[in-house]
Amino acid sequence: MVRVGILGASGYGGGELIRLLKRHPEVSLVGFSSRRHTGRPLYEVWPQLLDERLFRPQEEVVAEAEVVILALPNGIAMELAPGLLEAGKRVVDLSGDFRLPPEVYEAWYGLPHKSPALYREAVYGLPELFRAEIPGARLVANPGCYVTAATLALAPLAAEGLLEEAFLAGMSGVSGAGREAEETFFAELNENLRPYKPGGTHRHTPEMELNLARLKAQGRWPRTHGPKEEVRLSFIPHLVPMTRGILVSAFVRLREDLSEMRLEALYRSFYQDEPFVSFTRALPQTKGAYASNRVWVSLRKDERAGLVQVFAALDNLGKGMAGQAVQNLNLMLGFPEGLALDREGVWP
Amino acid sequence: MVRVGILGASGYGGGELIRLLKRHPEVSLVGFSSRRHTGRPLYEVWPQLLDERLFRPQEEVVAEAEVVILALPNGIAMELAPGLLEAGKRVVDLSGDFRLPPEVYEAWYGLPHKSPALYREAVYGLPELFRAEIPGARLVANPGCYVTAATLALAPLAAEGLLEEAFLAGMSGVSGAGREAEETFFAELNENLRPYKPGGTHRHTPEMELNLARLKAQGRWPRTHGPKEEVRLSFIPHLVPMTRGILVSAFVRLREDLSEMRLEALYRSFYQDEPFVSFTRALPQTKGAYASNRVWVSLRKDERAGLVQVFAALDNLGKGMAGQAVQNLNLMLGFPEGLALDREGVWP
Amino acid sequence: MVRVGILGASGYGGGELIRLLKRHPEVSLVGFSSRRHTGRPLYEVWPQLLDERLFRPQEEVVAEAEVVILALPNGIAMELAPGLLEAGKRVVDLSGDFRLPPEVYEAWYGLPHKSPALYREAVYGLPELFRAEIPGARLVANPGCYVTAATLALAPLAAEGLLEEAFLAGMSGVSGAGREAEETFFAELNENLRPYKPGGTHRHTPEMELNLARLKAQGRWPRTHGPKEEVRLSFIPHLVPMTRGILVSAFVRLREDLSEMRLEALYRSFYQDEPFVSFTRALPQTKGAYASNRVWVSLRKDERAGLVQVFAALDNLGKGMAGQAVQNLNLMLGFPEGLALDREGVWP
Amino acid sequence: MVRVGILGASGYGGGELIRLLKRHPEVSLVGFSSRRHTGRPLYEVWPQLLDERLFRPQEEVVAEAEVVILALPNGIAMELAPGLLEAGKRVVDLSGDFRLPPEVYEAWYGLPHKSPALYREAVYGLPELFRAEIPGARLVANPGCYVTAATLALAPLAAEGLLEEAFLAGMSGVSGAGREAEETFFAELNENLRPYKPGGTHRHTPEMELNLARLKAQGRWPRTHGPKEEVRLSFIPHLVPMTRGILVSAFVRLREDLSEMRLEALYRSFYQDEPFVSFTRALPQTKGAYASNRVWVSLRKDERAGLVQVFAALDNLGKGMAGQAVQNLNLMLGFPEGLALDREGVWP
Repeated sequence: MVRVGILGASGYGGGELIRLLKRHPEVSLVGFSSRRHTGRPLYEVWPQLLDERLFRPQEEVVAEAEVVILALPNGIAMELAPGLLEAGKRVVDLSGDFRLPPEVYEAWYGLPHKSPALYREAVYGLPELFRAEIPGARLVANPGCYVTAATLALAPLAAEGLLEEAFLAGMSGVSGAGREAEETFFAELNENLRPYKPGGTHRHTPEMELNLARLKAQGRWPRTHGPKEEVRLSFIPHLVPMTRGILVSAFVRLREDLSEMRLEALYRSFYQDEPFVSFTRALPQTKGAYASNRVWVSLRKDERAGLVQVFAALDNLGKGMAGQAVQNLNLMLGFPEGLALDREGVWP
Repeated sequence: MVRVGILGASGYGGGELIRLLKRHPEVSLVGFSSRRHTGRPLYEVWPQLLDERLFRPQEEVVAEAEVVILALPNGIAMELAPGLLEAGKRVVDLSGDFRLPPEVYEAWYGLPHKSPALYREAVYGLPELFRAEIPGARLVANPGCYVTAATLALAPLAAEGLLEEAFLAGMSGVSGAGREAEETFFAELNENLRPYKPGGTHRHTPEMELNLARLKAQGRWPRTHGPKEEVRLSFIPHLVPMTRGILVSAFVRLREDLSEMRLEALYRSFYQDEPFVSFTRALPQTKGAYASNRVWVSLRKDERAGLVQVFAALDNLGKGMAGQAVQNLNLMLGFPEGLALDREGVWP
Repeated sequence: MVRVGILGASGYGGGELIRLLKRHPEVSLVGFSSRRHTGRPLYEVWPQLLDERLFRPQEEVVAEAEVVILALPNGIAMELAPGLLEAGKRVVDLSGDFRLPPEVYEAWYGLPHKSPALYREAVYGLPELFRAEIPGARLVANPGCYVTAATLALAPLAAEGLLEEAFLAGMSGVSGAGREAEETFFAELNENLRPYKPGGTHRHTPEMELNLARLKAQGRWPRTHGPKEEVRLSFIPHLVPMTRGILVSAFVRLREDLSEMRLEALYRSFYQDEPFVSFTRALPQTKGAYASNRVWVSLRKDERAGLVQVFAALDNLGKGMAGQAVQNLNLMLGFPEGLALDREGVWP
Repeated sequence: MVRVGILGASGYGGGELIRLLKRHPEVSLVGFSSRRHTGRPLYEVWPQLLDERLFRPQEEVVAEAEVVILALPNGIAMELAPGLLEAGKRVVDLSGDFRLPPEVYEAWYGLPHKSPALYREAVYGLPELFRAEIPGARLVANPGCYVTAATLALAPLAAEGLLEEAFLAGMSGVSGAGREAEETFFAELNENLRPYKPGGTHRHTPEMELNLARLKAQGRWPRTHGPKEEVRLSFIPHLVPMTRGILVSAFVRLREDLSEMRLEALYRSFYQDEPFVSFTRALPQTKGAYASNRVWVSLRKDERAGLVQVFAALDNLGKGMAGQAVQNLNLMLGFPEGLALDREGVWP
């Protein structure tokens, strides 16, 4: 049994981690912290849990854990990580702190990066593309939710050098905005739909571009920093009146005209061994991934417009966050990759 | 008082028409038909109405009406319209039957067109672009819901010859699928989100393209058939778990690079006298148009990607359907254009 | 045109008042205040409005108004009302401050009552029961949302002396909790349902009991304070994942066994002249009252259990709040009672 | 591995059974049938499943199964069960066919009962009350969803002889109405709330009464047919705009006045060893049981009205249907009772 602690366990990512790790046969969940709720029992903050253990101070959780999962706001992990690694802990970070080169991070997050050296050590935890690097990692940067969907939607095209340009409409359930977001009142959001952070301002954009540029430059497995190839995306996120679920719909222009059948063959082949990616002819529905670690991908040629349309759906708290963190944890620790994870969604 | 009848009054478009026309000070609603509900009182089919009048046979409604609004499935209006016009009635048709040139209609709707001559007489009822043609019309083809949003989102660019190419993500509430659609069960749709009819197969695509090509070729007001200029769009509609509301988000490449400020000035000027189009800096939300005839438009430059992103929100049963029909009715009959219509939405 | 001002115009009740009064032909909306938003344009706080007027300081709004509507948190109206009346204004208060005898208010609201004398002058603004008193009133206390539904559900029985005891399940949409309630995050409430403030602790309980006791003691129209007859209710409110709408379902034991037919006749007769109460055989649905001032009432005998079940549905922001305030305003000012109000809901 | 087959696998109960049994370590799911979908792959009917196996004819599924779960409409199980038992199969029936004495069944379901003898053999599968009878059973009648909530809410009171009378408001998500119910269109139900089948007409009423009468007459474990003690309930079910979840709120009059503290002690003691019933001071929320087998119970005294209010929440497809069927299956087959079941819900 590996001793795992969660810092930031009162947010939605933290809560989903608790749900998954409580049923993990190889993990002992030794503690969880929440600055705001220290000393309160778990069930008060998470009504779905029958668990009377208390939220404890961060230091106590760290002291008992071999692996620490950071589910904290941006800007904190880069302060904590050096100490954790020094103390011999392994770390999975759910924030943006170690996902982007420090100079890119600083430009998009508006914060000075405090651990640029650690960024170079950190492994980007998208197993479908960079699985080989995860087992040995001390520090894994868990990808963003939109980024996971967009990258897996376009990866087969990028890796084959087929990606010319792409325009992405992202649509997210409200839990993606976090548990304390002021703008998520029910009465304002139900029966409502809107774009937000458009015009190329959403922080997930450079992370998508970087992933695709890497694939374009080097194919699937190898990884070096700073690829020369550039990818420019235009991304519009939307807020949808539902709790969980992300869909990315991409308009893609290819460098070479391939038939729908050949494109489907390419995707099938690219993802054939992936336990959590299902590429199908049927169009994705977010509910098909509800509460699971599934990514559901499909595509269509738009012959009239000369484009490919690619779709990817997932649960933003599952494969888009906590599920992927558990997948990374399993890989880091040498467990079967799917332990404690569901491949199929809850329906209806 | 003008005597108005509604055929197909048990669908959502018909219901919204009844709601609007009951409060119209110049209209006497003389009857409504529904093949399925003939003889039943209105309140049984429309629980929101305190109205004991009965659904009556189509012929009776027609006989008493001066203006007939057709809220029927595609393919029926082109059979009924010739007789109605011959009998001296004026007609507003909410179906697709008179929106497209017959050969385009036949290709997209899979039905032989039975009144090609009437298509040439029919006026396309999008007042913001073709207002001048409506007052004299005997037959008005009310535009589709996605089409109204997409066309008004891109019209200023098309009319200025700035539109190079556009990729449109459409997102619609469930009422757009009609009242008897088998696939609209609550438990399947709530907490769910999905694309549908992608790959350039949605019937609203050619209607959008035709509108924009007209604007590109001839600017705003004049209208001739068969413009030479072509516009090709790629359109992906999505089904969103809400009842009312449509949002179209467009990625647009311009022929000429204009600043965001100049683009906003262009839109403001284009729509400055339009009572139902509000162009704002604030991003549209569908709830801002709920139960109203409002179209809410906004835009952002994506400087990194070299594109413009344009957004338009409306109520698919309001400006996207019944509201627009009433607006057309008002223009046809010489009433103030906004009679019985709301310019502001119901919130929350 | 009567000059009306709204204090507390950024809450949901205030917003609905603005929507209704903007279309009121006899009212000039001279201003609205919001402590938090002074100086901001209306459209920023209310995205559905195309209105660039600013939220202004309370004093300025008061100065220009003949009638002031108070849509403020509990405890403020009783401070403001004396000054407003002294300055010759007439007042409609949406809070609980003048609905209950001061000693009852103090016990349930935990606040000392600062204007006990004004309570005796205040008229309780439930037109269906106390219409005669409203025209001359300087100060009208607008009833609570649950209270309006529960009182109108049981009034015919109480007025006939038939009410033995009643157990009420109330179910409310989320907007009833107000616009700034911390516990109304979408992700916590969607796909969720729960009771709250049970055990006889909800503040609307004594207001319901008082209304019914009055009816029991004196019948419909007369009104004196402190009826001797007591009514004891057990009330459980529930929070339902929807924005608008209240339903009260009551289990009622009668003093005398009446047939369902006689009970229905009693209700029909009681409400036959009421423009906003629809008593029907069909069971109420909250959507049938959406965005309107309608109250929809129905009943069934449960012969096996020897009870009557009575149901009442309304829009908590309509007849449950802002709509009723406008109805009271119309009565106070001698306008037709239904001016600017809808009798039928928006569906779907 | 026990070979299990599901008849009626395309309804919501069937789908949830598949989800649960696919992860059951001791069950081999050998087949599933659906009259309507024979020959189609599973994933077409259940988009959440990555399963290409086909729906097969009923006979084939039966032939290969040791245990058959019937998730069929009412009236079919009583035809199939005799043959299944004769062929040596064991059966769990999710319909109402074996829940009620044949004469009661006939009165409430309007069908002649075809296997009255089997009713006497059938065991009523509510493990918390009748666990001892389940292991040996050949035929288990799985309780109704409302019934499970109502019975477990009131069982401690009934078993102690404290239950004088009870009035129950039931509130259910839409999936309870089944997958093909015509009246469950999204646009009609979202932002809507309504009572249905009131007046003592809902078929779950006699099932609740029978359970409570048994408990009242004989306490928890023993079971005989036809208890003399009668319990009369008044029950109002409501349809709530959400997919999963049932809440029952009960107004209960006791035979003897007990303090809230003593009542809570009684409940805690009654349920202390039950793995799936959580009695808490915190009020139940349906989301706390989402996709799990949990029942969440709480209570409050209403001292003013002299009543107890009791609340029970569960997932109608979980403990209210498929989860409970798996719990019964585990008991029948001697597996740990909680195998493949979750005790905690999915949140948010």
